[in-house]
Amino acid sequence: MFSKADAVSSKRDRTRAVIVDTALRSFRERGYDATTIRHIAAEAGVSVGTTNYHFASKNELVQEFYLEVQRSHRAAALGELAATRDLRERLAVVFHTGLDQLTPTHEHAPEFLTAAVSPRSSINPLSPESDASLAIVEDLFREAVIGADHKLPGDIADALPRALVLAHLLLAMYWVYDDSPAQSKTRRLLDRGLGLFGMALPLTRLPMLRRPLRELLELIAEARS
Amino acid sequence: MFSKADAVSSKRDRTRAVIVDTALRSFRERGYDATTIRHIAAEAGVSVGTTNYHFASKNELVQEFYLEVQRSHRAAALGELAATRDLRERLAVVFHTGLDQLTPTHEHAPEFLTAAVSPRSSINPLSPESDASLAIVEDLFREAVIGADHKLPGDIADALPRALVLAHLLLAMYWVYDDSPAQSKTRRLLDRGLGLFGMALPLTRLPMLRRPLRELLELIAEARS
Repeated sequence: MFSKADAVSSKRDRTRAVIVDTALRSFRERGYDATTIRHIAAEAGVSVGTTNYHFASKNELVQEFYLEVQRSHRAAALGELAATRDLRERLAVVFHTGLDQLTPTHEHAPEFLTAAVSPRSSINPLSPESDASLAIVEDLFREAVIGADHKLPGDIADALPRALVLAHLLLAMYWVYDDSPAQSKTRRLLDRGLGLFGMALPLTRLPMLRRPLRELLELIAEARS
Repeated sequence: MFSKADAVSSKRDRTRAVIVDTALRSFRERGYDATTIRHIAAEAGVSVGTTNYHFASKNELVQEFYLEVQRSHRAAALGELAATRDLRERLAVVFHTGLDQLTPTHEHAPEFLTAAVSPRSSINPLSPESDASLAIVEDLFREAVIGADHKLPGDIADALPRALVLAHLLLAMYWVYDDSPAQSKTRRLLDRGLGLFGMALPLTRLPMLRRPLRELLELIAEARS
């Protein structure tokens, strides 16, 4: 038995979901600049007031977009992570499935980069507003590291996921600039980078390298907007 | 003896120089967003038409800004490069003097980053329009490598300057995000990174590492807008 309050809340949730779906499709098809709250309301069949009731700004809908991208990223990565215990291969899974999610939006990627790159932007991936979606990526890298048969020193393994998130964001930036067919240059850069990473792994156990490496990883991870 | 044509050309050059000086001061003091051709004309004491005759857009004046920053960078670096033949120290000179030039503009750096980050922006540092100023930095890194007592394999030494330019741009981006006093975190990141680079140098001679490293450097250097 449903109460009247439940019915109201369920209708509100459905309206919200329709607005989110419409906005995400618009971001994918029209890009960031051409998507407006007015467009979204019209296409979702609701008023601008209703849209504003749920989302105070276009950028709040970008956060929904980020969340959806990262949830799909997680789902795609988890399936493949089960197949290997090798650290380099597991990181390759997380990076490559991450790029897969971005691929359909390549045409509009420069607009999103411009809107998000300022440390003062609320849709900067390192902003407090983006914490929830960035945490999904960081958890994914953490799972990739934890579930691997590696011999990394504990402090390096701990610092790695946060630094890998930054590497993921830099790779995404390279990908925005990549005009090769299907952004194959980015995939090659990733594979070459991981290849060197794999070869360098045993070196992380050298005491001489370990401390400066940990400090470097921690400084990279401190990038915040 | 001066001809009339010389006098005209010299007056034109002086006017152009006044416009450039005014624009550069405005970029430093007001930032990118608040600087307009109208402001510059008023402060330079010339008409908007005269300003437009010399510079078709604000972004052409940003290119003058870039050139001035890189010429100062070069002058500052060359003095210090004479003092050492150590590769790590020479790279430290180029990176640190590069950050020195940026320091006075930190407050307005997010605006410049936003305006320049799109691969479609004419003031992107990797755009064809920015070639002249980027070449100054690349030459500086090349001189730092060539003038060093290093044992790098030739192909690695050749690929290094272009990749170092990209490292310089990424460091500048980290610096935009750095809210520590006097951006000391960026300086620490740089020193830690160079420390690890110095330790890793001998490894570049291992045949197993050399080829993937060269390929990685070349892919990094291929980033173009």
